Amino acid sequence: MKRISLLGATGSVGTQTLAVIREHPEHFSVAAMAFGENIEKALPLIDEFRPKLVAVKNKWIAERLKAELGGREKIVYGLAGMIEAATFADSDMLVNAVLGSIGLEPTLAAIEAGKTIGLANKETLVTAGHLVMEQAKKAGVSVIPIDSEHSAIFQSMQGQDRTALSRLILTASGGSFRDKTREELKNVTVADALKHPNWSMGAKITVDSATLINKGLEVIEAHWLFQVPYDQIDIVIHKESIVHSLVEYADHSVIAQLGLPSMLVPIQYALTYPKRLELKQTKRLNLWEIGSLHFQEVDRQRFPAMTLAYAAGRAGGTMPAVLNAANEIAVQAFLDGEISFLEIEPLVEAALEHHKPDREPGLEAIEEADRQARAFVRSQIRKK
Amino acid sequence: MKRISLLGATGSVGTQTLAVIREHPEHFSVAAMAFGENIEKALPLIDEFRPKLVAVKNKWIAERLKAELGGREKIVYGLAGMIEAATFADSDMLVNAVLGSIGLEPTLAAIEAGKTIGLANKETLVTAGHLVMEQAKKAGVSVIPIDSEHSAIFQSMQGQDRTALSRLILTASGGSFRDKTREELKNVTVADALKHPNWSMGAKITVDSATLINKGLEVIEAHWLFQVPYDQIDIVIHKESIVHSLVEYADHSVIAQLGLPSMLVPIQYALTYPKRLELKQTKRLNLWEIGSLHFQEVDRQRFPAMTLAYAAGRAGGTMPAVLNAANEIAVQAFLDGEISFLEIEPLVEAALEHHKPDREPGLEAIEEADRQARAFVRSQIRKK
Repeated sequence: MKRISLLGATGSVGTQTLAVIREHPEHFSVAAMAFGENIEKALPLIDEFRPKLVAVKNKWIAERLKAELGGREKIVYGLAGMIEAATFADSDMLVNAVLGSIGLEPTLAAIEAGKTIGLANKETLVTAGHLVMEQAKKAGVSVIPIDSEHSAIFQSMQGQDRTALSRLILTASGGSFRDKTREELKNVTVADALKHPNWSMGAKITVDSATLINKGLEVIEAHWLFQVPYDQIDIVIHKESIVHSLVEYADHSVIAQLGLPSMLVPIQYALTYPKRLELKQTKRLNLWEIGSLHFQEVDRQRFPAMTLAYAAGRAGGTMPAVLNAANEIAVQAFLDGEISFLEIEPLVEAALEHHKPDREPGLEAIEEADRQARAFVRSQIRKK
Repeated sequence: MKRISLLGATGSVGTQTLAVIREHPEHFSVAAMAFGENIEKALPLIDEFRPKLVAVKNKWIAERLKAELGGREKIVYGLAGMIEAATFADSDMLVNAVLGSIGLEPTLAAIEAGKTIGLANKETLVTAGHLVMEQAKKAGVSVIPIDSEHSAIFQSMQGQDRTALSRLILTASGGSFRDKTREELKNVTVADALKHPNWSMGAKITVDSATLINKGLEVIEAHWLFQVPYDQIDIVIHKESIVHSLVEYADHSVIAQLGLPSMLVPIQYALTYPKRLELKQTKRLNLWEIGSLHFQEVDRQRFPAMTLAYAAGRAGGTMPAVLNAANEIAVQAFLDGEISFLEIEPLVEAALEHHKPDREPGLEAIEEADRQARAFVRSQIRKK
């Protein structure tokens, strides 16, 4: 029985993680659970999975929840509460499925506590990949990626000669605006951006995959997770999202992981790794039913966010944290109707240009860079 | 330094094996070499690779070769000579790249002698898979496949949970007549059949890939090599031959091996396994340059040889040996202009129907079934 601490339990990846656990009650249990403020969604999940510890966003939510649950579970709150859930003594593994930079500290704490890490929180590696991987190495802890691309790469590296790895190739669907020109992007609406062709995801990630900055953040993650230089990480547009990513070796053999689009597969693989279990909720891939798979090069003129992301990754230090923070604020402003879609990228670029990078930042310097980038982008938006 | 015994040195796979060895003189050497009668092709190879032992087809060729070489190498001949090369004391690994049933006994002998086996000879597993794999298991010897499909499967199984394997999916180019109807096949010529779209191979294999019996034989090989039931082996037509085959697991995750078509990759992988080395003679795969990959179901009406192969495989015992032997004779008759292309399959089917199968045959019963099937098909051709 693997006992899991799940952060972000009411989100998209969180509920799918619970769906995997639900299919295999003989293999997995939920020891601790954290969510933000969606009590209505959380209550039946707490009832069903019976975690011993529940962490929520703030004291007010914690008190409402206590009133509902009547003291059966221990309720904690805030960042300290989330860290308590991540490092819970009765859990074997942390599944970190929270959105945003808030996911970083709980991950570091869980690594220190020796937990296996299942990582769906992009920001952890984007903003502090050097700290996370160094600490994981020191603690002898596995960091298993949960998004589909990194899981595909992780799966395609199992049993292979690591010293002969020559290239990672991440696939990108191209998002909801793949076939639009820059000109056509001028007047796209929030509703347009949220129509993702293959994946049902949260609003933030869906916008990020329309700018392709999502893929840029994944390049930075891949760099840290697999310790591969940026020159050896490529992206290919693949609109069907069937080939989830590929790994090339020195003999030009390429290993890839494929499947019908479903987050359940990478989630379950992180939980069962290195074994596998049945996954009845997903369908088998028959390539003859798909018929054809398409691939095209990324047009860097069309997707300038890609260039920004590679540049921030190569610069390293605090730059990826700035890239991520600036993008979070800009995307939120777009979702709130404050700016247009095409204003996202220039705001991110301006934040990177404005920032004075710290080359070897600790956690505090990263958090300070994050705060400053957010403040800077907010001030730019107010000026408009 | 891995010392190799190479059988079939002047054939297509043989010369490509030597090309791999030539690229890595610090890793591989040729301890023993066997070829048939192509002395002109063999002489410079013997000069270059300096095997200590050379096996040839017959005494006459052996004497011609001795006269040319002047006693530097030991020259042997016939099946006994081939077995001597396969089991040569100074060699670590057998690469069996001979064509036809003649490849079986040397493989069994090399397994018994504890050599690692690199297997490009289809007939070894098709006709006697049960004996070969049982003996390999007993001897603790690895049998590493060398054709592109089985190597792809083998590569896609490394580091994966063997107990969760749910399906092998072999890709088939569909051969030179893929887009022709049965009606259009009536008058195809030998020259037509030999125009394979993606691979440059020998005449026999090229015809086999036009009937798709090649793929049927590969299904039988896969059954034995990977110990997977026939119900869990599928075929998909994939005309670009970029995805070399795929393995599906219980969680519906599919691992595949891809690359530009080249036999050098599976050959080198067999030599370097489980490590990899650079392979400068091949080109890297950029999927955006390929653009699209196509997949379609196999039409069993259009390719009746597939049905015959699955039936022979499921029947087991001597039936696959009959399938293979009957096909060898029928294809040779087609190449010799004695029968038309569409007469190949009915001859194979007639041979299977005529045969009284032995369920648990030893080597002798297999060889007897092989001889009888050849004689039967020859007699049917003479009657025409």
